[in-house]
Amino acid sequence: MSKKEPKLTLVGAGPGDPDLISVKGMKALQKADVVLYDALVHPDLLDYAPNAVHIPVGKRAGKESVSQDTILQLIRESAFEHGHVVRLKGGDPFVFARGFEELEYAKKHGIRTDVVVGISSIMLPGLYGIPLTCRGVNHSFTVVTATTAQGTLSDDVYIAAEHSPTTLFFMGLGKIDQIVKAYKKFNRSDLPVAIVSRGSLDTGGVIYGNISTIEGIIKQEKPNAPALLVIGECADLNKELEAVNCELAEEGLLV
Amino acid sequence: MSKKEPKLTLVGAGPGDPDLISVKGMKALQKADVVLYDALVHPDLLDYAPNAVHIPVGKRAGKESVSQDTILQLIRESAFEHGHVVRLKGGDPFVFARGFEELEYAKKHGIRTDVVVGISSIMLPGLYGIPLTCRGVNHSFTVVTATTAQGTLSDDVYIAAEHSPTTLFFMGLGKIDQIVKAYKKFNRSDLPVAIVSRGSLDTGGVIYGNISTIEGIIKQEKPNAPALLVIGECADLNKELEAVNCELAEEGLLV
Repeated sequence: MSKKEPKLTLVGAGPGDPDLISVKGMKALQKADVVLYDALVHPDLLDYAPNAVHIPVGKRAGKESVSQDTILQLIRESAFEHGHVVRLKGGDPFVFARGFEELEYAKKHGIRTDVVVGISSIMLPGLYGIPLTCRGVNHSFTVVTATTAQGTLSDDVYIAAEHSPTTLFFMGLGKIDQIVKAYKKFNRSDLPVAIVSRGSLDTGGVIYGNISTIEGIIKQEKPNAPALLVIGECADLNKELEAVNCELAEEGLLV
Repeated sequence: MSKKEPKLTLVGAGPGDPDLISVKGMKALQKADVVLYDALVHPDLLDYAPNAVHIPVGKRAGKESVSQDTILQLIRESAFEHGHVVRLKGGDPFVFARGFEELEYAKKHGIRTDVVVGISSIMLPGLYGIPLTCRGVNHSFTVVTATTAQGTLSDDVYIAAEHSPTTLFFMGLGKIDQIVKAYKKFNRSDLPVAIVSRGSLDTGGVIYGNISTIEGIIKQEKPNAPALLVIGECADLNKELEAVNCELAEEGLLV
């Protein structure tokens, strides 16, 4: 048998629900010889590649399992040994996911590369009817990782707290005290907050509050990590709508 | 035949390539009785719903075709007459797409709703290997519509020009002179710029420049609208990498 050409395809697996992978991502998996997959990737997705080698390389907050160097090495070795490596990443490969480092590494080692973008976790609020933009409400939104690679608070939290109409924070649950402090400093205590636990599956969910109340609500509700924080006027539009719907239902106006 | 329950499912069709719809979006189309679809949606997607009624409701920049009020009316009438309406929208329904208005309208009229989030057009740069975030480069990115509903420049352009490490501008091509001016005001003339024309299909493509050069490059290259502007250090990382690859290829180091 002739040796297969080494190839890397970065595939975004989407935000949890296995049906939120793209058709193109599914097809890439069907052609994979090796699948290197993250901890947050739904296991059902591996069924698209029953004959491929499956290698878990998950990293979870707080628990270092497989180092990025080891992942890069696995990409290279797998591609040259087996051929087509699909690197299946939660969400989208290029949003706080180190996809570029893997692309760069593969290219520099003479491995052909392809990218199948995915539904980023920033789309999670949409599953609960929370829009990222709404006409008349905001012309922009900002996406921030609250926690840097060194574990410290990102300076961009302050910029968002001062200026951004709507902000989505990754890795924000563990920094909620500092985020709240930043928003209070800029007199934005009334701003709505939604916390979306990694959803689209049974374990997900959303809780609502505002900058003043959210710390207490978190202590009480204990949302699951990883979670996305949505802070801004958009965050509770749908909550208000649900309230309208309840009233309509009570009045028998909803079928 | 008993009357079907009225239902609206907002489905994100993704950024162009029909295979960039989610598996869940595909399944929703297969169950649709009516599909209301945008101009930027790939026509092949309608093949998933061969027996449904297909209604184009596209709006394109500069050409008013179907008003939002008419779309809302069509949603209501179609749902009560035929049952399950899939509202197929380019990108994601909640990123500059007025999805929330449609959701709100349907709920208030007693129509059951569901949302299938999609691959937003903000993922387009990824198709060209341009990351939205890169470790050591940025902790955040901002997404701005440069043009407001009134056709004016959004104030958020200035905030992004002053503060944001990486910004994606929707509707920015026609406002490029004002965007460049804003960045120059904050002494960011060297910042890399990539213009991604709605890609993942043959008509798409990317051109590179920086704040100082991009206006001239646009005049010369005439990128297709709609296009996404990426401004920030992330914008040309992949371009540099392509240059590395060319050198490697010349030296025979790339297979």
